[in-house]
Amino acid sequence: MGDRPILHEYAASGNCYKVRLTAALLDCPIERREYDIVQGETRTPDFLANVNANGRIPVLQVGDRFLPESNAACFWLADGTHLVPYDRFERADMLHWMFFEQYNHEPNVATLRFWMKWIGADNLSDAQRTQLPLKQAAGVAALKLMNEHLAAREWLAGQDLSLADIALYAYTHVAEEGGLFALSDYPAVQRWIARVEAEPGYVRMG
Amino acid sequence: MGDRPILHEYAASGNCYKVRLTAALLDCPIERREYDIVQGETRTPDFLANVNANGRIPVLQVGDRFLPESNAACFWLADGTHLVPYDRFERADMLHWMFFEQYNHEPNVATLRFWMKWIGADNLSDAQRTQLPLKQAAGVAALKLMNEHLAAREWLAGQDLSLADIALYAYTHVAEEGGLFALSDYPAVQRWIARVEAEPGYVRMG
Repeated sequence: MGDRPILHEYAASGNCYKVRLTAALLDCPIERREYDIVQGETRTPDFLANVNANGRIPVLQVGDRFLPESNAACFWLADGTHLVPYDRFERADMLHWMFFEQYNHEPNVATLRFWMKWIGADNLSDAQRTQLPLKQAAGVAALKLMNEHLAAREWLAGQDLSLADIALYAYTHVAEEGGLFALSDYPAVQRWIARVEAEPGYVRMG
Repeated sequence: MGDRPILHEYAASGNCYKVRLTAALLDCPIERREYDIVQGETRTPDFLANVNANGRIPVLQVGDRFLPESNAACFWLADGTHLVPYDRFERADMLHWMFFEQYNHEPNVATLRFWMKWIGADNLSDAQRTQLPLKQAAGVAALKLMNEHLAAREWLAGQDLSLADIALYAYTHVAEEGGLFALSDYPAVQRWIARVEAEPGYVRMG
């Protein structure tokens, strides 16, 4: 290989930030290539044919191979390092929280941040307006579940910070930006956010 | 450990079937414990306190530890076996398809099957009715993406059947049950379904 992995990304996206935070905590240099998702730059024929047929970022390019899905890109970077638990059950439990993130957390907490901050409350479609209260309730449920789990432990899976924490930190720490979630309702989550931000090598979003 | 893992499940659920199919292909005996999700048996205080605070099945119990999320349970069963590629990139690429399954495929293909077959078209809520065409379009996009990918290769990730195929097979092979998707539109997917079903140890859903 030799060459650095290339992250095809959009800097304001929490999914892209996960990959950069993982690389930073591992002190692994990556190259960044920016696309404007709002301008449709990940839906061009060239992007669909050569980077990701799913039209989404992030995509991690390793040599001439392309890896879509933020959590899979994090796993490639961290496989065999201290960010993936060595114990078989804990490793699967880390993945449990990463699948929870993509199923229960991101479609609610991240999507509402995008709707409220990028699209704007006044510009939502009827379908979006109908879904808003459902997504808000589901986002609250996800944050509440994390808060209860973190009340008794420092990290989501295993004994140390893992990819589970990185995956869920990304959109949790900016959950208030859409104006629909209050992190003060989740004090154990707030303490966990502070622990993530105290990690050596931590980098901010953006 | 010694004892068999216990699968807390609902037999008609594709997410639960993934775990049973993985165990069957690995010839790994598991015990099954059935819950009626329609009767709310996974939302009781006892279930929430002792099995899964998220109120969902499947949950794989390993000794006195509980592992929610179907794809994480499959990973625990298959970790270190031929169902998880040995190559680092291919292993991450398998996870790429498993995250795709939970984000792009299951919430559309599986949810519409549940809505149309269990709830029934006439009993859908207004919010569900609004989302139906969006979910149908997203489900078609997911099946189309799989079909294009599988036109040129036998398995989703790596050179052999992996957990990526098991995860996506579960709801794809019953996608027609809701009446909203036609598998004949996806001939490469149909050929891949036949390959999965020809695997030694394959078991049917249910």
